[in-house]
Amino acid sequence: MRAIGLLALAFTAVAADGVWKVAPPPPDSWQRDRVADLTARRKAAMAEMGEHGMMILYAAEARNYAGDVDWPYRQENNFFYLTGLTQPGATLVLVPGGEKTREMVFLPAADASREAWTGHMLTAGEARAISGIQEIYDASQWNAFLTAVMPRTRAFLMPGGGRGGRGGVTVTGGDSGPDWRGDFARTIEDSAGGRLELYMILPPVPEAVEYRREQEFAGKVAASGAGVAIRDASGIFVKLRQVKSPREMDILRHAVDITAEAFQRTFAAAVPGTWEYELQAQFEMTFLRRDGHWGYPCIVASGVNATTLHYESNRDRMKSGDLVLMDDAAEFDQYSADVTRTIPVSGRFTKEQAEIYRVVYDAQQAGIGKVRPGHPMTGGPESVGAAAAEVLKKGLHKLGLMTDPASEEQLRVWYFHGIGHPIGLNVHDVGGRELAPGMVVTVEPGIYIRPDALEHLPKTPEMEKFAAAVRGAFEKYKGIGVRIEDDVEVTNGEPKVISSAIPSRLEDVEGEIARVRAAAKTKAMP
Amino acid sequence: MRAIGLLALAFTAVAADGVWKVAPPPPDSWQRDRVADLTARRKAAMAEMGEHGMMILYAAEARNYAGDVDWPYRQENNFFYLTGLTQPGATLVLVPGGEKTREMVFLPAADASREAWTGHMLTAGEARAISGIQEIYDASQWNAFLTAVMPRTRAFLMPGGGRGGRGGVTVTGGDSGPDWRGDFARTIEDSAGGRLELYMILPPVPEAVEYRREQEFAGKVAASGAGVAIRDASGIFVKLRQVKSPREMDILRHAVDITAEAFQRTFAAAVPGTWEYELQAQFEMTFLRRDGHWGYPCIVASGVNATTLHYESNRDRMKSGDLVLMDDAAEFDQYSADVTRTIPVSGRFTKEQAEIYRVVYDAQQAGIGKVRPGHPMTGGPESVGAAAAEVLKKGLHKLGLMTDPASEEQLRVWYFHGIGHPIGLNVHDVGGRELAPGMVVTVEPGIYIRPDALEHLPKTPEMEKFAAAVRGAFEKYKGIGVRIEDDVEVTNGEPKVISSAIPSRLEDVEGEIARVRAAAKTKAMP
Repeated sequence: MRAIGLLALAFTAVAADGVWKVAPPPPDSWQRDRVADLTARRKAAMAEMGEHGMMILYAAEARNYAGDVDWPYRQENNFFYLTGLTQPGATLVLVPGGEKTREMVFLPAADASREAWTGHMLTAGEARAISGIQEIYDASQWNAFLTAVMPRTRAFLMPGGGRGGRGGVTVTGGDSGPDWRGDFARTIEDSAGGRLELYMILPPVPEAVEYRREQEFAGKVAASGAGVAIRDASGIFVKLRQVKSPREMDILRHAVDITAEAFQRTFAAAVPGTWEYELQAQFEMTFLRRDGHWGYPCIVASGVNATTLHYESNRDRMKSGDLVLMDDAAEFDQYSADVTRTIPVSGRFTKEQAEIYRVVYDAQQAGIGKVRPGHPMTGGPESVGAAAAEVLKKGLHKLGLMTDPASEEQLRVWYFHGIGHPIGLNVHDVGGRELAPGMVVTVEPGIYIRPDALEHLPKTPEMEKFAAAVRGAFEKYKGIGVRIEDDVEVTNGEPKVISSAIPSRLEDVEGEIARVRAAAKTKAMP
Repeated sequence: MRAIGLLALAFTAVAADGVWKVAPPPPDSWQRDRVADLTARRKAAMAEMGEHGMMILYAAEARNYAGDVDWPYRQENNFFYLTGLTQPGATLVLVPGGEKTREMVFLPAADASREAWTGHMLTAGEARAISGIQEIYDASQWNAFLTAVMPRTRAFLMPGGGRGGRGGVTVTGGDSGPDWRGDFARTIEDSAGGRLELYMILPPVPEAVEYRREQEFAGKVAASGAGVAIRDASGIFVKLRQVKSPREMDILRHAVDITAEAFQRTFAAAVPGTWEYELQAQFEMTFLRRDGHWGYPCIVASGVNATTLHYESNRDRMKSGDLVLMDDAAEFDQYSADVTRTIPVSGRFTKEQAEIYRVVYDAQQAGIGKVRPGHPMTGGPESVGAAAAEVLKKGLHKLGLMTDPASEEQLRVWYFHGIGHPIGLNVHDVGGRELAPGMVVTVEPGIYIRPDALEHLPKTPEMEKFAAAVRGAFEKYKGIGVRIEDDVEVTNGEPKVISSAIPSRLEDVEGEIARVRAAAKTKAMP
């Protein structure tokens, strides 16, 4: 009954044995409140656009792996945020000024021979049930819709003039088509009068690979003289997505639960002689077994690799005396957690490792304390970043790695990234600078004693003096990299660390390693 | 010592316990013969181009996952085939007519602050050691090189005229730059005389997302009047890549060994109540633990899902009485295996499942028998496909699923894909139609009794008659999907099934399931 029984009964038997903690089932709200959540988001997006607006969002394109193989499909986040649909080839339209119809999805037609190859395609009924959007059309009607509501788009959508010759021909409203012209009379009028505002996701720079189709379409609309002003919809999503609904919080907590189960496995498995990619395998297996995926490529960085922030190659072998920095988290239903722990391979921190670790830990606690409404993430004395930096500077000065405890320049030699970021549909999610209840942010200070750190300093007398003064301490701590990262919910009261089940206090880390390694000797891991 | 010990000592203790077979270490030839292999390939590519040719290959671009997160980097196959380099941003140039220099790589410059974020970038020395190419330049010299060998490219590379004003200015050969103009005098002459042939990988259709940069560059070169004929390099790679070197065979066999270890785990783990994605987790964990990756997204299709060829959602729960079709294989060093097994969740095939299974197995054996030099994969009586189809037709006729044992149309109702394909750097690798020693192909017949199979037949009297006649048998076998796929090396003698360690004969499958499930009760899986 061991490995097999535990595998099949993971949610029950294993959870009950008291040794291994596995993730609970997904939250009830996940499916129960889905349509209500999606409907509220679309309503809010339409309110942001106003009655002269129209939004068009495309489903994500496939990402090529090699040859005719693609990476697993992942939906474009904003399209997913408003529809919940994971179908490729779909298009969402929101028309706040529509007479009867304000929300529409155009779906590629199901086709038995395609489905025999690549699997089930959503039917209109399924798309309605998932999204709550009632008006579902076939993608083949897309051009007819566009030319109905923006007649000038005929110029590039039907360059030959369509079936009716040049200009002035009624495209829709035939025998069987929907009455686009009646339903969207106002949009057509806005288009004719130059008042229509077309919202799409536009790439941040014109040459970007992503959102190129959107940019090309928007460019053609603009050039067609269709009476349409092009607006970037991104700002609307920044505003809406940064504050999470209760259901979104449940989903994020579930992603954290899966992440916690995976960390537990790696605390047990990270013994000397293990390869970094073997821990990556433990993470990815746990994410997949719990119906999740990574939210970002796994980082398992042992020894000096921990001083590279986004070390993703994971190709070294761990040895006793190394720390291993693991920045790994699950995504569930496209919502990603983001957690980092740095643990000793031997099970015990060395004196030098512990000294660095405690500074980072204390800095993180100070930062977390500032995760409250109205505080900024960075900038100003009340910011999360300033609180953490203060502790880092004092600590590094005490360890002899800074000569001036007020110097930002010296701090940046050992700590050269931001204090944190919002999480959500992107692991580095959209969001503003000031915290508000319902936001979820990471707090993740670190100290990285890169072996070449003193070779790349600015050639100023100050920094040369600094390098000479800290060289002794540098040699002592060289190669140590520590980051501790948690996910923190902004509430009206105390900050809520939703990843607190994964031990981070030094004594707790050592205790958990001892516990799970002992357990692994008597009970197979779940 | 169980779970933990086994994890750390997987290659030794576990392999030695006789119960669990784990993949051996990577083959010696993998690193030992790398430079010789790469050098021979470049020499062969240059011979194909001839002395007026020049080849430019770009390293792959990153593939976006979401927001600022990318999928793990995977090198473009042809670039990898000639360089072995996995560095993004690199460019390969081959100039068969070069005076001294015929092979060059342009590498993005290492930069300490970038490396602190995303890890080590290859140095020139490392790139030399990996690829065997001696001439390594900084990517910042790329435009200077291009304008030296194809002077007219100045028109679009330096639209303002560069530092020397309009036209006629020597761009290279300054104080410190390499002597491109001397070294490539012949190429420059060819360019001036309209004889230069520029080989690049061009997309199969102009609007393709892949190889868009190549197409844009080639288009600009052509438009610049640089005296250059644009050639698609793809044909050269089809010719070279289809026959594998001994080292490539070793790497492919290692990918198969990793795949075999993973199948063993899933034979044990696929018990009733398991979710499809839990088996996916076992595959992906094993691939990662052995320093590999999937070569194509995992397919774990239980019950009726097995009748969808590329079912990749893996979201159903398996029950006793189901078959589960697993089309899953590891890629090692970018070479992918491709293996399918269909096994009973309960451990025993039902009578109906066994009847279908034996037909597929016999068809596969017949197909494998034809994997010999000079035989085509499909077309003609000596083809692999024809041999397998012959057995399928006889078997389906005997089971009452065909009325005419000679009808291709009836066969296609139950078997609607090709018999196999070459494998290599793509799981569906490049390759011609006629087999030759050193090729490796899959042989993968299947029978899929899709529940809607009789609803989508052509509306002809023949097929209506067929549907009526087979309905009884259809109801009996409905929902069964079986595919068996092995990787077969073409030799001068007998076909060599390199994936034969994974049981496929019905009795062997049942025996292996019983063995590993019993073992899992007494010894934790490796």
